[in-house]
Amino acid sequence: AAIEQHLAGTPPAPGRLAGRHVLVTAGPTHEPIDPVRYIANRSSGRQGFAIAGALAAEGAAVTLIAGPVTLDTPAGVERVDVETAQEMANAVAKTLPADAAVLVAAVADWRTDAAPQKIKKGTGTPTLRLTENPDILTMLATSPHRPRLLIGFAAETDHVIEHATAKRAKKGADWIVANDVSGDVMGGDANTVHIIRAQDVESWEKLPKSQVATRLATRIADTLQETA
Amino acid sequence: AAIEQHLAGTPPAPGRLAGRHVLVTAGPTHEPIDPVRYIANRSSGRQGFAIAGALAAEGAAVTLIAGPVTLDTPAGVERVDVETAQEMANAVAKTLPADAAVLVAAVADWRTDAAPQKIKKGTGTPTLRLTENPDILTMLATSPHRPRLLIGFAAETDHVIEHATAKRAKKGADWIVANDVSGDVMGGDANTVHIIRAQDVESWEKLPKSQVATRLATRIADTLQETA
Repeated sequence: AAIEQHLAGTPPAPGRLAGRHVLVTAGPTHEPIDPVRYIANRSSGRQGFAIAGALAAEGAAVTLIAGPVTLDTPAGVERVDVETAQEMANAVAKTLPADAAVLVAAVADWRTDAAPQKIKKGTGTPTLRLTENPDILTMLATSPHRPRLLIGFAAETDHVIEHATAKRAKKGADWIVANDVSGDVMGGDANTVHIIRAQDVESWEKLPKSQVATRLATRIADTLQETA
Repeated sequence: AAIEQHLAGTPPAPGRLAGRHVLVTAGPTHEPIDPVRYIANRSSGRQGFAIAGALAAEGAAVTLIAGPVTLDTPAGVERVDVETAQEMANAVAKTLPADAAVLVAAVADWRTDAAPQKIKKGTGTPTLRLTENPDILTMLATSPHRPRLLIGFAAETDHVIEHATAKRAKKGADWIVANDVSGDVMGGDANTVHIIRAQDVESWEKLPKSQVATRLATRIADTLQETA
């Protein structure tokens, strides 16, 4: 009853994130193989865009760094469009300082040396040597301008919590939002996520991306208030 | 003056493609590297969707086989969604017979053996061995159900007409629509194309994709009437 009263009687004050700057990355990155071909991670960008919108609705000044997607910019959000992981890393660095960063983008882990002209077929079967891309989460975690609340995402197909817990520790993030993508075509309208923190794991039921976004924005506002 | 009068006075009769079945492919294909990563060719799908719509507006029964894009289906078009080149080839084969086929899709030329689970980073830098995908244009050109008018697209960055002319001969297509993508981010709203035929090359000025589509639909209607 106390909880119900709390929920019904005292909605979060509007603008609890007023005066905060929050950085959000969203979408895939495209790593060129040649002028027409690329490597990418699957990502519709919708979860990140929804989070950017939810944070702005809580009053935050949101900078959304977006890979190549065809989505409308949420109201009140400042958007920076990028193509590759390197461009995204550069845009993130330029956006600092920020009170919080939510790295939702499905950044391509590898790039390859792009051919300047279209590779013709029938010239044998090429082999792509992949080079690891800059890791934006690690870059932020070790930055002198590290955001106070640093949140990474992890799309996992198996051992979801185990992998995401290891990722949190290794990367030095405050939270990892672990997204269970097993048996799922990405780009759907709902996500099953677990919030991995140092002290606990909060598992949410399968929710529409918009609700994942508003709930996460609420947690972020709670945490920035607590630690202010 | 005669031309002006012709253009103003006698618009193409509506429904010149009534009773014709036209197959259109559009968009990219995505070739999985693992459950979250893929290789693709850049393609917004917009030129192919516009062509499908323009053909339907001329009265054709259009089957549009679309790779992963987030575009609305044009009015009067039957749409089949696919992900990979192999799925697109299968869908094309099932759609035959057709009076004409317009292969606009930027099919990924290569695929790789997809890993069943997400490849972890930090396990060295993987090498992707690429295998050539089925060539849908060649498949149609050599099919016992070859469409009477077979049109391929070629995105070229250099020696546009030369490359496209060689492609037409090699593939056994009737026309190649050569798209000059040099210095262009694909996914723009306009295209500079050349229509490569056995007897000639018709070069069009840079046009909005919608106008490339209507002009091409007109040429297709002319040709199917001539050769009926």
